[in-house]
This record gives sequence, C-alpha cells and structure tokens, in this order.
Amino acid sequence: MIEILRNIVENTPDAHGAVLMGFDGIAVAQHCTEDSAAEGVDVESIAMEFSFRFIELRNAAESLEMGELSDITIKAEKGTVLVRILDEEYFVAVVMANAKHFGKGRWMLRSNAPALHNEL
Amino acid sequence: MIEILRNIVENTPDAHGAVLMGFDGIAVAQHCTEDSAAEGVDVESIAMEFSFRFIELRNAAESLEMGELSDITIKAEKGTVLVRILDEEYFVAVVMANAKHFGKGRWMLRSNAPALHNEL
Repeated sequence: MIEILRNIVENTPDAHGAVLMGFDGIAVAQHCTEDSAAEGVDVESIAMEFSFRFIELRNAAESLEMGELSDITIKAEKGTVLVRILDEEYFVAVVMANAKHFGKGRWMLRSNAPALHNEL
Repeated sequence: MIEILRNIVENTPDAHGAVLMGFDGIAVAQHCTEDSAAEGVDVESIAMEFSFRFIELRNAAESLEMGELSDITIKAEKGTVLVRILDEEYFVAVVMANAKHFGKGRWMLRSNAPALHNEL
C-alpha cells in the first residue's frame, strides 16, 4: 500500500504527499516527501481536517440525488488537495504545493485507486 | 451579470447552468439551459445545498493556514459541480451533467470571474 502511495507522490510534480484515510480522519497509510516535512506541511493533518467536511459533501450529494461522490478538489492559495473516494469508508488524498500539475495528480489517483482499494 | 453566466453555460458542453450565489445560499443571478429544467436538475438548489459546506471547507483551509480557497470541484455519479470563489461573500458555480468537459468549464469560470466580481 505504501508503495502505491509512493508511486503516486513520485509521479505527481509538486506533491507533498499522499494519504489513505478513513472518513473518521484516521490514516491507514501515507507517503510524504522529505521536503514536505522541512517545509512544515503536515499531509496527515490536512487530510484529517478535511475528512469530516468530506462526509458533509457526501451527505449533500446524496440528498440531492447526485449519486455517490467520486472526486473532490480543493484549491487554496498555498496548496491544493485532490481526493479520490475509494468506498463508503475510505478515501485517498494527494496534497500538492500548487495546482500546476493537477491533471497529472488526478490521473495518478484514478489509475491507482483500484489497486489501493484491493489492499484494504 | 446574466449575460456572463449565459456565456459560461453556452461555452461549457454538458453544463446544466451557472449561478452566482452568496455563501448564505441566496442566489444573485443564474442562467440554466432549457434541458436542465426538463431533466429535473435544479441548479440553484444544488448550489444552495453545497453553499453551507463550502463555508466549512473555507474554515478548514483557514485553520490549516492554506490561505484563501479559490476553487472547489465535486464530482458525483450523476453530476459535477465546479466552483470559483469570488470573494468572502460570493461564489460562482457551474453544474455539469458529467466531468467530460471539466477543463473547459474551469477555464470559463476563471476567465469570467473578474467580470462577475466587477458587477457585484
């Protein structure tokens, strides 16, 4: 599982790290770059802080009869968070320094999601 | 303002509509396709249901010192919502039937955001 997360991070330029987490905010596994720690970016804390909000977004989509959520993207001044939902309990998130390589990150998440899900 | 929203919708394939809304869920202006009404898609209700959650995401980003949120994307089975935040009070959202033309929608939102903001 760590190897898959490492692969996502190493192939997504400007990624600080990737984490597989439950919607309860508890991380299953993560891989972060050395630079992210040096820059004081805490990938796990970022994913955890958003995880409870993701439940709210999922509930909203459900009440709107939009079906299951599959992806969430949040872009802020100092970082971008890409999320791929794996199932009712787990998601995988990539935290990036910026949105320049957003497309590559999203593709890496999607193409690796089935393998991550298989390991749960 | 309606003309700008119409321009966004007409140039984003598979868009149901666009709405300029306050974070309190009250719409300022909107433009929807005729098809969206026929298909029972209520663009204003979708944006309103998510608006309160957007405040939560903004608060999370703030507490994580990620700076101001600028974009949010939510992809579900039966629809995709693209959001561009205009300022502390307002955002513009495009509701799409799918994510196929996500890139075009995002570009239309970004390139028209300054003009929409000017009219507020």
